[in-house]
Amino acid sequence: VSRRSGRRPGTSGTRAAILEVARRSFALSGYDRTTIRGIATEAGVDPALVAHFFGSKQRLFLAAMDLPFEPETVLPGILSGKRRTVGERFARFIVGILEDEQARSVLTGMVRAAASEPEAARMLRELISRRVVGPIAATLGEEDAELRATLVGSQVVGVVVARYVVAVEPLASLDPERLTAALAPNLQRYLTGPLSPPTSAA
Amino acid sequence: VSRRSGRRPGTSGTRAAILEVARRSFALSGYDRTTIRGIATEAGVDPALVAHFFGSKQRLFLAAMDLPFEPETVLPGILSGKRRTVGERFARFIVGILEDEQARSVLTGMVRAAASEPEAARMLRELISRRVVGPIAATLGEEDAELRATLVGSQVVGVVVARYVVAVEPLASLDPERLTAALAPNLQRYLTGPLSPPTSAA
Repeated sequence: VSRRSGRRPGTSGTRAAILEVARRSFALSGYDRTTIRGIATEAGVDPALVAHFFGSKQRLFLAAMDLPFEPETVLPGILSGKRRTVGERFARFIVGILEDEQARSVLTGMVRAAASEPEAARMLRELISRRVVGPIAATLGEEDAELRATLVGSQVVGVVVARYVVAVEPLASLDPERLTAALAPNLQRYLTGPLSPPTSAA
Repeated sequence: VSRRSGRRPGTSGTRAAILEVARRSFALSGYDRTTIRGIATEAGVDPALVAHFFGSKQRLFLAAMDLPFEPETVLPGILSGKRRTVGERFARFIVGILEDEQARSVLTGMVRAAASEPEAARMLRELISRRVVGPIAATLGEEDAELRATLVGSQVVGVVVARYVVAVEPLASLDPERLTAALAPNLQRYLTGPLSPPTSAA
């Protein structure tokens, strides 16, 4: 929550409109090419107002790139159900998120920004550690829970990049049900399976 | 191979030096922030020479971002061995590539560029389809071989982003042997396992 929001009545609509434009711009153009001035123009407001609400491009990015779901609310429900089907529930949830155009736009925007801007990568790293890896590790109740969370994350971000950013076929146009089925057992193993071979010869 | 390379004796060293600088710059700064002029300055040559060798930033990118291995040579060897251990061979190969600093720099550069620049994403998509998905599909001899190749690709690119670009812990500093062991069964399933559940209830 921005310290400055809601000072005057009637500003929350403007703030939301700016965020909406910013979200689209970060997703479509990436962090580097997105400017406060460009966002202000597109939102039909003065650049000074954007600066007033958000301070800097970095802070605007952080506000715009908030996760399209509440991990603290959603993840415990997915992870605490029947252990044998946790991968399927997780896959269904993620594919559902990615099928939602605005949620997908936030996630691709995050990846684009992190890839082009070390500062955005740092912010995304903190966001993921605190709000995704933390809750997963706290709920999962498995050994190596944090590593498991980041392995799941690697598969999810890989789908975002391969399916939507690079858009390589046939993954790019794969039916969501088939994608869920393809991902589920792999997420299941990352979440609950052995991460090392039974007879370690390393 | 550039049409213009090797016209004069002694130019191949210069060309290689420009490529080396370009590779580093695309990887560190991303596509947008990399300029012909900047590369020329860093390589100690005239910008006109860079233009002479490569024509445009796009063509320079394509030359610099060539895959750090020959997929047509390497992949058949990995894929045509014992079927039961193909995931382990693939994981070991990829982790080995990523442990090599220059190869990793090329791969992270590709992802960074594709994420920030639609034209780079298009070039990467073509490169991957033609030189990675094609050879895998031709050698694998499984149903849905192209989909399998892109699912493997999604996991590999996800590791590149999560481990090196966003650098989220504990994945970022995971021991290469443990990473190989973590990835192998998941790549094995993508390459040879069933991609749909046995009793499809979709």
